[in-house]
Amino acid sequence: MGERNAVVLLSGGLDSATVLALAVSEGYVCHCLSFDYGQKNRLELAAAGRVAAAAGATHRIAAIGLGAFGGSALTSADIPVPKGTASQGIPLTYVPARNTIFLSYGLGLAETLDAGALFIGVNSVDYSGYPDCRPEYVAAYQAMADLATRRSVEGRRIHILAPLQHLDKGGIIRLGTRLGVDYSLTLTCYDPLPPEGLACGECESCRLRREGFSQAGVPDPTRYGLKGRV
Amino acid sequence: MGERNAVVLLSGGLDSATVLALAVSEGYVCHCLSFDYGQKNRLELAAAGRVAAAAGATHRIAAIGLGAFGGSALTSADIPVPKGTASQGIPLTYVPARNTIFLSYGLGLAETLDAGALFIGVNSVDYSGYPDCRPEYVAAYQAMADLATRRSVEGRRIHILAPLQHLDKGGIIRLGTRLGVDYSLTLTCYDPLPPEGLACGECESCRLRREGFSQAGVPDPTRYGLKGRV
Repeated sequence: MGERNAVVLLSGGLDSATVLALAVSEGYVCHCLSFDYGQKNRLELAAAGRVAAAAGATHRIAAIGLGAFGGSALTSADIPVPKGTASQGIPLTYVPARNTIFLSYGLGLAETLDAGALFIGVNSVDYSGYPDCRPEYVAAYQAMADLATRRSVEGRRIHILAPLQHLDKGGIIRLGTRLGVDYSLTLTCYDPLPPEGLACGECESCRLRREGFSQAGVPDPTRYGLKGRV
Repeated sequence: MGERNAVVLLSGGLDSATVLALAVSEGYVCHCLSFDYGQKNRLELAAAGRVAAAAGATHRIAAIGLGAFGGSALTSADIPVPKGTASQGIPLTYVPARNTIFLSYGLGLAETLDAGALFIGVNSVDYSGYPDCRPEYVAAYQAMADLATRRSVEGRRIHILAPLQHLDKGGIIRLGTRLGVDYSLTLTCYDPLPPEGLACGECESCRLRREGFSQAGVPDPTRYGLKGRV
């Protein structure tokens, strides 16, 4: 029965909520895993819990010590989260080896739960900038995972599934809307405004989200607390 | 200058202490990384600190939430640490995806420190049982790492180095003795005796260590607190 168990990496954002809905729709018994990695945006963990509960999935938060590494605007107090248009090359919001660490925890949990699938929400918008979101990276991770676990030694692969890989934000939102995802439960913003945690509307993540709803032709349920220009 | 920085995964045991000495002897500026993963053997973290200090290396401990996964005699209170002769197949002391998680943290730290090398002490005795100690696993990890990081995208590989890969315990101890490793600082035992943390002398790890010193023809500096038969 383990083949119907799946681990879903859940950030509390739009992409992974869509992946979870897709995995549920395919009949997987879903076990969500979120990470407390010292991110400035603490509210996304609460959002992840809401999303998992709405999907009838279990939810675990692994506290992991990435903050000690520094080196990213998402974890380091010294580097402000960039606003405005997408930067060239690898964004400042890149966290060293983040997806590699997240997938590795997911692999461990999948083996513990005897799960045959591990879902991650990387997509074509992300891999314009982050090296560990590209399809060739996911394929290389699968090849490594096939040699890494007791399950794989026994010939039972843990499939690394990135079903949004070739979708843009509009496509993801259309897919999720068809699957009944309540996007008002999700939080995308890198830098939500205190005290309620309204989305800032200005960071790259907010900007991509707003454009995505616009592309998808779906009303955006996000409550933005815009600081400056709209 | 980053090419001379190295991250060394350090457990506090005999193998990784030898790897650290080797990396230092090759001129690397070494940054050691240990993991607090809820292991029953808390004393090995103190041993790791002693070993790093003796080698003139920096030392970080990352607190990681593996205990929540369960599934191994090294982290789960429900599974006793096995005593006596080596078991067939994958040992009960196997922790799901452990080396994958450890290497992934090491990769993140290597990128943060702009280090060109990541050392791990897996060896031929280990890979008789653990899937994630085999040479083909390390090679697949390297292939994945080459696609995972900002450094690799910029054409500057982080080399995953497992220099003990083809050595047995006797060979490792002979190498370390040549390099001046003080093995009395290290702790191998899976289940040390309270209160001082003397090695039990009976678990598989103690047994392999004792045989190793015997094979190497080197006096064993370990203080054993044998419970039963010798």
